[in-house]
Amino acid sequence: MNRTEPRTLAGFMELLPNEQIQFNQIKAKIENTYQKYGFLPLDTPIIELSEVLLAKAGGETENQIYRFTKGETDLSLRFDLTVPLSKYVAKNYGNLSFPFRRYQIGKVYRGEKAQKGRFREFYQCDIDILGDGKLDIIHDAELPSIIYTIFKELGFNDFTICINNRKILNGLFESLGQKDCSVEILRIIDKIEKIGKEKVVEELTKLDVQKEKIETMMDFLAIDGSSKQKIEKLESLKIDNEVYNQGVEELKEVVKYIQLFGVPDTNFKIDLTIARGLDYYTGTVYETFLNDYREIGSVCSGGRYENLAEYYTNKKLPGVGVSIGLTRLFYKLNELNLIKMPQESIAQVLIIPMVENLEQPIKLATDLRSFGVRTEIYLGDKKLKAKFKYADKLKIPFVIVIGEDEVATNQVNVKNMQTGEEKKVLFEAGEILNYIK
Amino acid sequence: MNRTEPRTLAGFMELLPNEQIQFNQIKAKIENTYQKYGFLPLDTPIIELSEVLLAKAGGETENQIYRFTKGETDLSLRFDLTVPLSKYVAKNYGNLSFPFRRYQIGKVYRGEKAQKGRFREFYQCDIDILGDGKLDIIHDAELPSIIYTIFKELGFNDFTICINNRKILNGLFESLGQKDCSVEILRIIDKIEKIGKEKVVEELTKLDVQKEKIETMMDFLAIDGSSKQKIEKLESLKIDNEVYNQGVEELKEVVKYIQLFGVPDTNFKIDLTIARGLDYYTGTVYETFLNDYREIGSVCSGGRYENLAEYYTNKKLPGVGVSIGLTRLFYKLNELNLIKMPQESIAQVLIIPMVENLEQPIKLATDLRSFGVRTEIYLGDKKLKAKFKYADKLKIPFVIVIGEDEVATNQVNVKNMQTGEEKKVLFEAGEILNYIK
Repeated sequence: MNRTEPRTLAGFMELLPNEQIQFNQIKAKIENTYQKYGFLPLDTPIIELSEVLLAKAGGETENQIYRFTKGETDLSLRFDLTVPLSKYVAKNYGNLSFPFRRYQIGKVYRGEKAQKGRFREFYQCDIDILGDGKLDIIHDAELPSIIYTIFKELGFNDFTICINNRKILNGLFESLGQKDCSVEILRIIDKIEKIGKEKVVEELTKLDVQKEKIETMMDFLAIDGSSKQKIEKLESLKIDNEVYNQGVEELKEVVKYIQLFGVPDTNFKIDLTIARGLDYYTGTVYETFLNDYREIGSVCSGGRYENLAEYYTNKKLPGVGVSIGLTRLFYKLNELNLIKMPQESIAQVLIIPMVENLEQPIKLATDLRSFGVRTEIYLGDKKLKAKFKYADKLKIPFVIVIGEDEVATNQVNVKNMQTGEEKKVLFEAGEILNYIK
Repeated sequence: MNRTEPRTLAGFMELLPNEQIQFNQIKAKIENTYQKYGFLPLDTPIIELSEVLLAKAGGETENQIYRFTKGETDLSLRFDLTVPLSKYVAKNYGNLSFPFRRYQIGKVYRGEKAQKGRFREFYQCDIDILGDGKLDIIHDAELPSIIYTIFKELGFNDFTICINNRKILNGLFESLGQKDCSVEILRIIDKIEKIGKEKVVEELTKLDVQKEKIETMMDFLAIDGSSKQKIEKLESLKIDNEVYNQGVEELKEVVKYIQLFGVPDTNFKIDLTIARGLDYYTGTVYETFLNDYREIGSVCSGGRYENLAEYYTNKKLPGVGVSIGLTRLFYKLNELNLIKMPQESIAQVLIIPMVENLEQPIKLATDLRSFGVRTEIYLGDKKLKAKFKYADKLKIPFVIVIGEDEVATNQVNVKNMQTGEEKKVLFEAGEILNYIK
């Protein structure tokens, strides 16, 4: 027989079971936290009509997209969860309650250049809050408190949620007479972390921004101090621009509420260099960094947009959202040995029957399961040693061997695989449960 | 602005939040049950190299497949979870422990003719147990006990797991000199439920099967009685064929163990008409029916195969597995109003702050969440009535309004939205938890 090499595509994560369990643990923690804040689940298709998905044409995204025809139909795989959300909300507007709080955790597709740690299929974990016509600024402060909860849940302490407001930058550019190329300027400034201050100055110069104006921008970006001090400095600049002043006002509100939502000052800060390259953000923007591992990049980003679904509906739907790129995050945490959760098994108990009649082992397994204990029976015909090795490789914490003796005496040995300790208990699910708990 | 109609593709399920919650409940029950039996999670890519996915060429599947090129690469979307499993096991053989028990719940893609209740993107929920070289027949009996547990968990009592063994049919055909066209005969017989006995006879006649042989087949398929009686009749036929006898022996074993695994006689039976059209099954085959809704078709099917990954490796990997087509199942249950779970909300408590200072409401929400209560704060600026309507539409069971009075008296009213009852309790998360539990 001609055999095909069993390959997986480059840029597509495929984990071994032990890694997959950890990945799923992290995913579940994110999902549970989203639910704890009352977000509703969505699960939109991975394939959409290209016409719908690319309604807002252009940009880098289009080159990366997986697009093809099936029959006569022009199809694309979703490249994020925001565009499908826009379509969904426009389509189902009458059936939704606002503010509409939804989460979606799902795979998205981007045909990026293959590169270590870059994925073409990856999970995004998104939350968005959408208002009908308007959405109070306080929601911009609720999201950082959710980000905070998630990264604490994942075992991190030393991380910073960086906050800015695009109106401040836009207003500044406007006041400098640079409104027309503000998007380009933002894109350049957004890279300051990556390419450094000098390179930013260089690129701005190329864009024909005057030297003094660049200096003003750089001075502005260098504003330092606590959140309170930064806001005071922003106010003290007395920039006579409405957009600027609105941005400062919003930022002040958001900071005030973030504190009220219980995010410690050590875990968030105003960072005036953050712009988020995507041009649909219009107000608050977020990025989140693990402080000892800035090189990972932002682990949770997002912001406020004025009008989510304008390409599909005339309803005005402002919103605010954040996204965690889970696949890349997991890859990086795994690489850096930063996954803070213990390696868990699925089965908590392995029952190894060494008797002809399986009635008793099966009954025990059924009873343990009814108590919520994940229980596997080793049903194959192998040597005892091989069966223990199986439990060991799968990291199953408890093993119970059932032989004729155990059935006769109505007692079993429960072996703790981590300590090696064995404990004799009554051959009864409740007793065993008490011991392993 | 030119607007695009926000359409979703035909054959792609997209649910409203309330439906999505129910869908996810069912999915979680299936996943939890799989885990309770110790199955390990996998999450393979949705896109694979066409060369890999279609290694075993041909059949109906290939016309239905979503296949396209990206750059130079010939890609396909997975059409089931079995082929990706084969690839995975062949690729990771050295890193897996056998018997390898895995579950996978994920979307698969088939470009079927668009039709009500037919889906082009749908969830499959698969479990398989793979042996290294061999796999004891008792595993064929464990799977029905898992199917049984799942449908009980989903609130059903009146369902039947139908079991057969393809060796019995193959052996029968062999003994009738029809070995060469046994696959075709199986495909025809498999349709007996759908097209009726006469149509089957007609199609077999067209296949040039002699009249007496067709009669023998029909007599055989009409064998009736309890499982025990059926096996006795199968044995009493004294068909002198090794494959046949092996099949009867296996079926006998499986039935014995199914009973031992605690599946009541009312929930399973031998059904000699079941063949499963797919030609890779080689032994035990399963189909499951909701007895009052046979028209839904089988809600959980599968079987035993001799060699899973032969297209990728020379390792012999026999296995047994079943699959639930969740999307179609959900669609049908929903249509027939058969979803037995109460409609749940995500948020369990909605806090409505009617005070200037949000400190107290936020603290209460944080405390409730730390007790595991999913809690939402209504942060928008609306009339109280609109906020209650929001809770009502989202079916949030408890609402707590916090005004100046509540803060001053340190007492809050918890409103049970279902009964309309209000209860005054101490403004303290523990107290509130006690009440709503």
